[in-house]
Amino acid sequence: MTDLPSRVSINEEGPREGFQIEPGPIPTADKVALVDALSATGLRHIQVASFVSPKLVPGWADAEAVVAGFAPREGVAYTALWFNGAGLDRALAFRDRLSVTGSISLSASEAFSRRNLNRDREGNLAAMRKQTAAHLAAGVPVRRLGIMAAFGCNFSGEVTPAQVFTAIEDGLSIAAEAGVALTRLSLADTMGWANPVAVERLVGAVRARWPALELTLHLHDTRGMAVANALAALRMGVASFDATVGGLGGCPFAAHKGAPGNIASEELAMLCEEMGIETGIDLDALIEAGHRAERIVGHPLPSALLRGGSLRAMRARMAA
Amino acid sequence: MTDLPSRVSINEEGPREGFQIEPGPIPTADKVALVDALSATGLRHIQVASFVSPKLVPGWADAEAVVAGFAPREGVAYTALWFNGAGLDRALAFRDRLSVTGSISLSASEAFSRRNLNRDREGNLAAMRKQTAAHLAAGVPVRRLGIMAAFGCNFSGEVTPAQVFTAIEDGLSIAAEAGVALTRLSLADTMGWANPVAVERLVGAVRARWPALELTLHLHDTRGMAVANALAALRMGVASFDATVGGLGGCPFAAHKGAPGNIASEELAMLCEEMGIETGIDLDALIEAGHRAERIVGHPLPSALLRGGSLRAMRARMAA
Repeated sequence: MTDLPSRVSINEEGPREGFQIEPGPIPTADKVALVDALSATGLRHIQVASFVSPKLVPGWADAEAVVAGFAPREGVAYTALWFNGAGLDRALAFRDRLSVTGSISLSASEAFSRRNLNRDREGNLAAMRKQTAAHLAAGVPVRRLGIMAAFGCNFSGEVTPAQVFTAIEDGLSIAAEAGVALTRLSLADTMGWANPVAVERLVGAVRARWPALELTLHLHDTRGMAVANALAALRMGVASFDATVGGLGGCPFAAHKGAPGNIASEELAMLCEEMGIETGIDLDALIEAGHRAERIVGHPLPSALLRGGSLRAMRARMAA
Repeated sequence: MTDLPSRVSINEEGPREGFQIEPGPIPTADKVALVDALSATGLRHIQVASFVSPKLVPGWADAEAVVAGFAPREGVAYTALWFNGAGLDRALAFRDRLSVTGSISLSASEAFSRRNLNRDREGNLAAMRKQTAAHLAAGVPVRRLGIMAAFGCNFSGEVTPAQVFTAIEDGLSIAAEAGVALTRLSLADTMGWANPVAVERLVGAVRARWPALELTLHLHDTRGMAVANALAALRMGVASFDATVGGLGGCPFAAHKGAPGNIASEELAMLCEEMGIETGIDLDALIEAGHRAERIVGHPLPSALLRGGSLRAMRARMAA
């Protein structure tokens, strides 16, 4: 219990994750309204769009309009995602509104890379070297290394800490060659394989080896384990998590349609709040944003808390 | 991590909880088929029916037919629920098929007792004294004390360990007066107020005071915290949990319709399995029973794992 952080940062990825996977089309104004609702909750990091090929991801054909449309709130970092030079250029056009920072993104499972990106390990490394150079050439800082499939892979099975170490070492090499110092490591349970013991094992091993790297966990709730996995990470002192409001996003790798996507932001926020960990988030406003997201996508989202309602609201009702 | 039990017992309450709250009517044959599907999964305790007034709970008007209908499997304890002498008599008619054991059931929140049972603390104690005497007169063993609203109450707010202690002491007094020795204490998060820190605090305090009582946790997933709460309890060595397949049951005390009910049996079983704790359950058979339950009630159940699918199945697919 002593390693619990006093404050946790929740990186909201709901707009980007959600509107990418929903069948849509979803009006641009709805996307903008959700971003603005989220920025009013106290969230400090919101990923608002994906600069990807409109042919591949029609749901993000309006990325520019969304980024141009939200009302920037002071103290909130708005981010976007891109995978190549064309995407980077589109993001750079919004440097006044977006926090444009670069990542090195690798997979701990080569099988996943092959399936998801059609690249082997060497191909990935080459792509990341090129992307890092492009970021630096554009004056975009590169501080973060993200490792996908850090707990398991639907195409190769268990992923061991040793495999994750290899991917981290690859990423650190790319950074060193480019002369940049990474400060943050994000470990992603991309396909929902993590369990609390695996979280403790991996976080413990990574911490012991790279004590200076700050950790972020990107958890998926594919099998209902995300909140328990977050608890295990909190106990290890992890203080930064990606999440999506309502659990927006779904999972293209689940056994059945309709599986939850990322850990729901409001469930993570409630876990923290009830355990005395500060998040800076107005939980009821975040739940309200989740209901808004449900109205936008036109179906219930997987978050239980959207239906259960917060204890904060319950206490307020009793005090009234 | 050292307090993790090597084996956990999951008490399946899905049939009883689920068919009580679903609008129905649900054919008796479907109820029987679900019980038989559940007994084939390796579950050793299944609560199959509620002997309550058919006027109050029409969903259980066919309790006798369900109990007469299932195919008893060796090694499985089938139980039922009742709240008064008439219910007890109906259960006693099935002593050949049911494991008929008595409980003393109290609430840590008097406000909840008043709302739910229309009884104050004294009224509850009197009712439990009477029920205990009736159990003993019928030769029904009384070994279990159940405390409802052990973590919080929608009508009075936070419930402190001190309030839970008072209820436990009340229960132990009733047992002592009747000359019976209780062996098991069940702590119920009836309205979904628990969090992992509260679980640790209460379990730790109860253990310190009554080290000989075996503990069961009855968790609800109203706000998405149930699996994390179970993890906290497992870490404290708790080895017995009530649960419902698919999360059957719903919650009459949630803010919105459709809130999850009890912790889903298969999510708890998967948490255990992935952490190396034995449950004796065939997880994929249990997930299949969950899908059956969904077909019976005619709507998706809240369990994420029903959609995500087990890792066991995923591994088997890769090995094939």
